[in-house]
Amino acid sequence: MTATITAFERSPDRGNGLARDMRLRWALEEVGQPYEVRLLSFKAMKEPAHLALQPFGQIPTYEEGDLALFESGAIVLHIAERHPGLLPSDPNARVRAIMWMFAALNTLEPPIFDRSLVRILERDKPWYEERLSALDEIIRKRLDGLVNHLGEADWLDGAFSAGDLLMVTVLRRLQGSGMLEARPNLAAYIARAEARPAYRRAFEAQRAVFDAAAAE
Amino acid sequence: MTATITAFERSPDRGNGLARDMRLRWALEEVGQPYEVRLLSFKAMKEPAHLALQPFGQIPTYEEGDLALFESGAIVLHIAERHPGLLPSDPNARVRAIMWMFAALNTLEPPIFDRSLVRILERDKPWYEERLSALDEIIRKRLDGLVNHLGEADWLDGAFSAGDLLMVTVLRRLQGSGMLEARPNLAAYIARAEARPAYRRAFEAQRAVFDAAAAE
Repeated sequence: MTATITAFERSPDRGNGLARDMRLRWALEEVGQPYEVRLLSFKAMKEPAHLALQPFGQIPTYEEGDLALFESGAIVLHIAERHPGLLPSDPNARVRAIMWMFAALNTLEPPIFDRSLVRILERDKPWYEERLSALDEIIRKRLDGLVNHLGEADWLDGAFSAGDLLMVTVLRRLQGSGMLEARPNLAAYIARAEARPAYRRAFEAQRAVFDAAAAE
Repeated sequence: MTATITAFERSPDRGNGLARDMRLRWALEEVGQPYEVRLLSFKAMKEPAHLALQPFGQIPTYEEGDLALFESGAIVLHIAERHPGLLPSDPNARVRAIMWMFAALNTLEPPIFDRSLVRILERDKPWYEERLSALDEIIRKRLDGLVNHLGEADWLDGAFSAGDLLMVTVLRRLQGSGMLEARPNLAAYIARAEARPAYRRAFEAQRAVFDAAAAE
């Protein structure tokens, strides 16, 4: 049964791979599963039909037969549990891969996502510089934890996993900030992930939506 | 094999159940598993021995034989997968319970935790009122999504699950803000969770650490 995901009709990041449907597309590409996409306007996301599926009015969602899900982390875990390729079979290694999924979304993403919002919404506020610099300090500490853990390894724990997939989607939001460039092993880690054929296919599919909307 | 968790030697919330080891204690109590606690000072959390276990220098961690984990969400999921009581057996219901775990930690917790930090760290800043009110607006929208989803149900999706456990630990941070009091079904949901014997045992165990430190 082919799953259907939802995505932005007009990507706020101009097709740069940061919208969270990218995580689902990439996971589905890694495990070789086809999917369909239902595009939503910002208006449709706040209407009853979508709110019945996603109580917070966000994308992405995932529908597969009688299963309807939201939360990109949970959906990636569901895909990883159903199809080989994103979780190791050794039980302890499997739990550690899931640990990195939570670390990506609960330890790294909150300050990194905040930083994106501050740069968009608070640029003209009198506190902008002070607030950005406080956030950057938190982010740098967490990146340094990651730098030390990763060392010279290719991936966070053994083979590429759903933990790396989520971590890379979170870290990519910092591209251009200088904070990744200053940490060569993290920059190489992200480049290694972006070079995966499944990543490329997912990125191009998300970009195509933006290009089509822009050409209208 | 009895698991060992780490917790704050001196709780920043004065034993009010908000430190994240509470999630592990509660989950272990729900499934009837004993555990040991290793207390850490703020200094010890940043030393190499702990950083080898937790690269971001935080609590809690979880050690069980040759498995070492951090991230409270991942640890609760691990406990829930190993022992009956926190995840339904129906596969779709199980995935939805996990979805609520991610919703608690990735959709609700970031702005709610931010609010706690702002109230502590930015109270004297000139932008305090404006920033708090912007955060409260985000939080209210998410709470309203939860209010509508929960309706008159006891729990987020059928029986009490690890999703409810994490959601309640996140929402409790808003007690006293007026935002829960204004949403009676959410206030009742939290009260229902706090009345569970496993919750009480976990809360008292965490409180006892604070009381012991305070009596020194």
